[in-house]
Amino acid sequence: MKPIILASASPRRKELLRQINIAFEVIPSKGEEIISSSIPKEVVQQLAMQKAEDVVKSLNEEKRLVLGADTVVACENQILGKPSDKKQAIQMIGCLQGKAHQVYTGVCLSRLEEDGRIFSKTFYEKTEVWVAPMTEKEILDYIEGRYEAQRGEKLEWEDKAGAYGIQGCFAAFITGIQGDYNNVVGLPIARIYQELKLLNII
Amino acid sequence: MKPIILASASPRRKELLRQINIAFEVIPSKGEEIISSSIPKEVVQQLAMQKAEDVVKSLNEEKRLVLGADTVVACENQILGKPSDKKQAIQMIGCLQGKAHQVYTGVCLSRLEEDGRIFSKTFYEKTEVWVAPMTEKEILDYIEGRYEAQRGEKLEWEDKAGAYGIQGCFAAFITGIQGDYNNVVGLPIARIYQELKLLNII
Repeated sequence: MKPIILASASPRRKELLRQINIAFEVIPSKGEEIISSSIPKEVVQQLAMQKAEDVVKSLNEEKRLVLGADTVVACENQILGKPSDKKQAIQMIGCLQGKAHQVYTGVCLSRLEEDGRIFSKTFYEKTEVWVAPMTEKEILDYIEGRYEAQRGEKLEWEDKAGAYGIQGCFAAFITGIQGDYNNVVGLPIARIYQELKLLNII
Repeated sequence: MKPIILASASPRRKELLRQINIAFEVIPSKGEEIISSSIPKEVVQQLAMQKAEDVVKSLNEEKRLVLGADTVVACENQILGKPSDKKQAIQMIGCLQGKAHQVYTGVCLSRLEEDGRIFSKTFYEKTEVWVAPMTEKEILDYIEGRYEAQRGEKLEWEDKAGAYGIQGCFAAFITGIQGDYNNVVGLPIARIYQELKLLNII
């Protein structure tokens, strides 16, 4: 069985597939992302499918399974994507602190069939996340990276939906979750494992 | 402020304190562990307190905060500690698969006061964990390490309460949790952060 293709360049998604020992190659999708909904579970599934099918089409290789995924944070009927700058990141954490929000990850497993059709299976998982009340100083300290033991090239909140990393120092402020933890990191790997089993990939 | 003392040699607990950037030194407790209860939340708090106070006494340094912790898995009114061998590990996973269980971590923050008394604050967190149904082959494959991408010195289940690592490849079988994820790894770090704030340690 050839490795599956991950249609995402996210280092966290790569790490999660490695964690459960699924062989994969990376071909990030370059397609345009078109959303026709504002309902989180629909948005993430639409985008996951666009990413997966974009790679299936460009690859044009029969039977090779492609995995596309997209994650958003929903807080009080607002969808939070990746913050564009520090100011927006501070606003997002300000919105999330002291209450619960929802993280949605949509996944699409897609492949080209022998008859030229594209087979796609799409699903999503939702995880509820509770954030402790934070002072303005704590929010600023987090965004400035003052809780980070080791600084990478980017600050923890950069490039992350909702402006936080649950697997990083923001864990100090997450009092509990309900659902799949790894769904918040970027992939619902327990569900993915079961779906790959159904497709006889593992 | 001097670093706190972690009264545990667990590599996972060290990693969690590092993750939220809390300065610490390690002095593992060597005291005997005495349990006078079979109620999980009491067991973990008793053991956490014994570990912390043992180190406070041997250290004999005023005002230095010591953190002791203990984790157990409770499944159908049975307490699962660390498995002693492969056979017991297989039994434990067999017991956990296809249902929910509870993980309890007790924490004790302890220090020697100026008047010679020992101050101790003890608490616990409980996390509910759901494990997918597993076939006998999947249980065996897990215990034999066949899901592990990289093998360490030990197999994943060795030295872990309940015979699994939520942060490792067993994540493929954990469909959801309710509570603090890091409590299952070994320390409820969100709660610990709040308690250290109350004690003016951070």
